[in-house]
Amino acid sequence: MRLATRNHGFPLEALSYDVTPAGLHYLLIHYDIPAVDADGWRLTVDGRVGRELSLSLDELRSRPAATAPVTLECAGNGRAQLSPRPLSQPWLLEAVGTAEWTGTPLGGLLEEAGVADDAAEVLFRGLDRGVEGGEEQRFERSLALADARREEVLLAYAMNGWPLPPQHGFPLRLIVPGWYGMTSVKWLERITVLDRPFEGYQQTQSYRLRQVPDEAGEPVSRMLPRSLMVPPGIPDFATRERRLTLGPCTLRGRAWSGFGPVERVEASADGGASWSDARLGPQPSRWAWRSWEWDWEPREPGAYELCCRATDSAGNGQPQEAAWNLGGYANNEVQRVRAVVADA
Amino acid sequence: MRLATRNHGFPLEALSYDVTPAGLHYLLIHYDIPAVDADGWRLTVDGRVGRELSLSLDELRSRPAATAPVTLECAGNGRAQLSPRPLSQPWLLEAVGTAEWTGTPLGGLLEEAGVADDAAEVLFRGLDRGVEGGEEQRFERSLALADARREEVLLAYAMNGWPLPPQHGFPLRLIVPGWYGMTSVKWLERITVLDRPFEGYQQTQSYRLRQVPDEAGEPVSRMLPRSLMVPPGIPDFATRERRLTLGPCTLRGRAWSGFGPVERVEASADGGASWSDARLGPQPSRWAWRSWEWDWEPREPGAYELCCRATDSAGNGQPQEAAWNLGGYANNEVQRVRAVVADA
Repeated sequence: MRLATRNHGFPLEALSYDVTPAGLHYLLIHYDIPAVDADGWRLTVDGRVGRELSLSLDELRSRPAATAPVTLECAGNGRAQLSPRPLSQPWLLEAVGTAEWTGTPLGGLLEEAGVADDAAEVLFRGLDRGVEGGEEQRFERSLALADARREEVLLAYAMNGWPLPPQHGFPLRLIVPGWYGMTSVKWLERITVLDRPFEGYQQTQSYRLRQVPDEAGEPVSRMLPRSLMVPPGIPDFATRERRLTLGPCTLRGRAWSGFGPVERVEASADGGASWSDARLGPQPSRWAWRSWEWDWEPREPGAYELCCRATDSAGNGQPQEAAWNLGGYANNEVQRVRAVVADA
Repeated sequence: MRLATRNHGFPLEALSYDVTPAGLHYLLIHYDIPAVDADGWRLTVDGRVGRELSLSLDELRSRPAATAPVTLECAGNGRAQLSPRPLSQPWLLEAVGTAEWTGTPLGGLLEEAGVADDAAEVLFRGLDRGVEGGEEQRFERSLALADARREEVLLAYAMNGWPLPPQHGFPLRLIVPGWYGMTSVKWLERITVLDRPFEGYQQTQSYRLRQVPDEAGEPVSRMLPRSLMVPPGIPDFATRERRLTLGPCTLRGRAWSGFGPVERVEASADGGASWSDARLGPQPSRWAWRSWEWDWEPREPGAYELCCRATDSAGNGQPQEAAWNLGGYANNEVQRVRAVVADA
């Protein structure tokens, strides 16, 4: 509860925007939003590098810049649909958003610092501090060197053409397209090149697929495919069940995957018993969601369960029901929207 | 749950801003956010008027304009602290925010339309549609004519200097300073002058102080006084309990009331057993919150319960524990923050 009232969900009717307005993008903030004085702030690059760097925001802004629309999703999206429900931020399906991020490619900065031959990982440290698992910490996550060097990885200082809002990581955040959001560390203060794997809390304790607490588990990394629809008709305030009147209805939505472009979206009006192909819109960029639509006409009044699912070019799909895991991560089961259709 | 993940809370560390950044202001949206085409949109003024009006956004923008910082709070703020918990959006304390709203005074528009002698109320109708209490409706609320004519009541088209974001009522919303947020109808499409009291759902069923469902109950109107503090130290991720180290600590917060200026804020470090006066900052405007601070130094490590409470010029205060009501409205009991202080 204390988490649900702090963290902001993306209202699904906002799937109608190609680029999500900043105030509608999801937010998952582990600790408090740090208040950062941009004038005094600097980014440090250190560790296994030939030359340590200390850069102001203006210096970062004067470097080569890139802008890209990127879909970000929380690794815990869908968590609240698991049973028993893992204890953390209780997302249903609304932990997603697509913004246009502007920044300087991380690869160029690493090249300038001169990564040592024995470098293995790159560690990203935020200014946000808190206690988790009984341990006081800054939020810190690492990437393997090869992942950190990928051309799409940005140090972003702008969102949708404006300086980052405080809650999205002002003055600087990492953006790792294709990966779940925990990777895109906000409020960056330090980037450290390591000669061994990082073993901090957010890497080895949190964000792991586990059945029991004492197993190591596989790390959560890229986003599994997911498709979401704009719930049609109008909502009931409390239940969010949808009301429609009999007649043609075009369902619209978006789909994405961190493993490869979305190649197919299917929809169902009978709870997933039968599926039809949706029409896919253009892929606006490799790392942003793809629109789709599906024409549906209910034959008679009654209750329907609308569903959609995506398949990516790597052959990953979405299960009808996701397998449970302790942290409630990477649940990409099909969306189900209950709709009651009445006579017009 | 479905409401908590849609509606956005104000993270209390954002009390540090005089004016809340748009993406951190609270949001309570009954139905879906309407997608409005500003070019085709017009505001209608009709009912008991001498001359019906139909105004475009540009026409509204060319009228006399006013800008004011206004604190808005949801009538359901604090609801989730009641027991048994009323079934609706489960706010703890984060349904608040202070934005600078720009618009044209409603009074001038009513004058131009020429309010009839038998006029009693002014009804505001939004574009947002849904089902509530089993009834399909637009969101609609009314004000008594005298309240609608008050000089501080605005038809706002800008928030913090920018066109309203979709989720805050684009292209036009009502702003009624001093009143709980349900009064400030978003996505306005029609203003109708009535010769009798409006009896719609949001006026006579919802937003009433009731003990049992079949009593009429008193309507919820102006905001009771409330003071909130920035939780000091750092949070535990899951419990949001605060961790501090021994040493001096200045608590900072904001206080407001819809009944009159805040004249006193008190703080407590022992759960409300003893209280001390906080220092009040200037009152930036009649309708915006007022800052305060209180110097505290815990004498020894241990657990503390930090509290604060405000008193307004009308003599209203905050109870240690709020009386229960069916809708969970207007709960302004004192804020309690659990803090664990450790040796430095």
